[in-house]
Amino acid sequence: MPVRPIRWEDGRLSIIDQTLLPGEHRCIELNSREAVWNAIKTLQVRGAPAIGVCAAYGLVVALKAAGPYESREQVVSALKEAADYYATSRPTAVNLFWALDRMQRTAQEIEGGPQELLQRLENEADAICAEDTARCRAIGEHGAALISEGAGVLTHCNAGALATSAYGTALSLMFCAHERGTRFSVYADETRPLLQGARLTVWELMQSGIDATLICDNMAAQVMKEGRVQLVVTGADRIAANGDAANKIGTYGVALLAKAHDVPFYIAAPLSTFDLSLPTGDEIPIEQRGAEEVTHGFGKQTAPDGVHVYSPAFDVTPAHLIAGIITEHGILRPPYGRSIAEAFEKDAQSLAEFAVQRNNL
Amino acid sequence: MPVRPIRWEDGRLSIIDQTLLPGEHRCIELNSREAVWNAIKTLQVRGAPAIGVCAAYGLVVALKAAGPYESREQVVSALKEAADYYATSRPTAVNLFWALDRMQRTAQEIEGGPQELLQRLENEADAICAEDTARCRAIGEHGAALISEGAGVLTHCNAGALATSAYGTALSLMFCAHERGTRFSVYADETRPLLQGARLTVWELMQSGIDATLICDNMAAQVMKEGRVQLVVTGADRIAANGDAANKIGTYGVALLAKAHDVPFYIAAPLSTFDLSLPTGDEIPIEQRGAEEVTHGFGKQTAPDGVHVYSPAFDVTPAHLIAGIITEHGILRPPYGRSIAEAFEKDAQSLAEFAVQRNNL
Repeated sequence: MPVRPIRWEDGRLSIIDQTLLPGEHRCIELNSREAVWNAIKTLQVRGAPAIGVCAAYGLVVALKAAGPYESREQVVSALKEAADYYATSRPTAVNLFWALDRMQRTAQEIEGGPQELLQRLENEADAICAEDTARCRAIGEHGAALISEGAGVLTHCNAGALATSAYGTALSLMFCAHERGTRFSVYADETRPLLQGARLTVWELMQSGIDATLICDNMAAQVMKEGRVQLVVTGADRIAANGDAANKIGTYGVALLAKAHDVPFYIAAPLSTFDLSLPTGDEIPIEQRGAEEVTHGFGKQTAPDGVHVYSPAFDVTPAHLIAGIITEHGILRPPYGRSIAEAFEKDAQSLAEFAVQRNNL
Repeated sequence: MPVRPIRWEDGRLSIIDQTLLPGEHRCIELNSREAVWNAIKTLQVRGAPAIGVCAAYGLVVALKAAGPYESREQVVSALKEAADYYATSRPTAVNLFWALDRMQRTAQEIEGGPQELLQRLENEADAICAEDTARCRAIGEHGAALISEGAGVLTHCNAGALATSAYGTALSLMFCAHERGTRFSVYADETRPLLQGARLTVWELMQSGIDATLICDNMAAQVMKEGRVQLVVTGADRIAANGDAANKIGTYGVALLAKAHDVPFYIAAPLSTFDLSLPTGDEIPIEQRGAEEVTHGFGKQTAPDGVHVYSPAFDVTPAHLIAGIITEHGILRPPYGRSIAEAFEKDAQSLAEFAVQRNNL
């Protein structure tokens, strides 16, 4: 079982403090709304799905601390106040707003007194967490067979359990293959400038007993040339309707190197990552990061004062370099225009069936 | 004029202390044999040609300190003692031994008293330095025209003036093009794990007023995709008879990325870099480096304790990815088997002509 960055046990919320990794593995309890806000703000919890789950449970923590309540209106009012407060912690995190909205919609839909409302909100946070875990698990189950016995798998950045409620996306394949008893090796790019591969990916693979080897980003080509890699899999931040995928800077280069060595390159991502309003990846804006991450990355200045730095945070891997996109509904194959549309139809059907089931309960 | 890492002025030897770069630009005098030994040992001076030049002048420093001499035998004996001592500073540096041998052969060939011998040895150190500068300058002159007005040039690691007596190899093209008034931009890969690009390359380009932008190694593909690069040029550590070139890890990947973006990839290196005893690059051994350089790069631990690390120091770029090899005798083109052999014939001829000229003096 991979690490779980967020735990809800006996009505208490605790997280792995990711700012201490890889030096120290410490769980901290978030027992006040200030503690929750601070954890999101300071990246003690990070990764879009993980932030959403933490915020949902964080609302329950805030409500419990602000009670007792005499009416349901008092609960709804306290919920809104807490949600507005959490919204200021990371104003660009889409999943944060999505989770805060979903919890507030739930409160409006539920009838009954304050105690029932509190219980139903806790159940909704559990549901948000469980759905994320199920999605990640499904990605892993669909993709695990891509990892053959004795294979080498290369990944870039951290698309792991630490960024979600459990399993992650790209790393979910590895956790599932490991559970099935497949023996394989992982090569993890350290992923400059912020070193998510070195700090997080190899750490969580090692926690699960998976053979992980750290390399510098510029060693990937040589590792492939030596025949050590049979599969490349990464996560994605945003995928266009034609399958072009934006992900951490360096992913596009890895995809080109994989192509040059006849190694299949896969993306692992839930359907929530797709943005069908974008026809191609050309429409995905590329955020530029500050120079300091490159020039002062290791706690010490490593480049001259005043040097120009160019530091795009993401790049876009064109669909023609992607052998498949592993989603919770299976592996999508080219041509992606069609397979992505089909996956969304399938998703709409299963959501409709689920709604019917829920209404019948 | 690019920086000169080694200066011999009024009989005094001084160097730029490269261990302080890029934070501090300090010249230190090496006024004893212990200071010279220490400078080579601790990488205050680095780069194969630069070490050779420093050691040659270092022998003159040692001889002056150990004098006065009553006979030529005393000088020869002191010279041997100093050379044996310097040989222990970096036992794997080929250019170090080459320079120490050349100085000792010179002493054996020269007749006359101790004063004349000392003067001729100082002249020989000057010749070693001047020949290196001329070779580097010739590489730059031959290659400068590859840099067109407004072009972007990408380089990897440091093949600059700091590694030679002046100009460097890959960077010599840039210094020469800059002298000719060509306007262009350089993108320098930071070059993990030891960051020679960040610490040295951008620093020396900035010192000469050349527009330099630092990127992380994994950003090169994106920078090429954006059309910012029209030429890639790097140095080489060893070149086989068929043109396969070993250079700092990451070079092979950059060559593949250049190919994918239709950007020509060049190597700049003097003939002394060629090892014609090796038919292909497959015979070049790849040194493996320790984990600490990756996990504890710059004063701070960035990966978990006990993580496996794979860290090849070099990779080999196959000849078919190389558009040309820029040498002191011109740009060699494929098929390299023939053009390399021709360059060596040309070199033998010019050495023979030079010997005739010297004998006629």
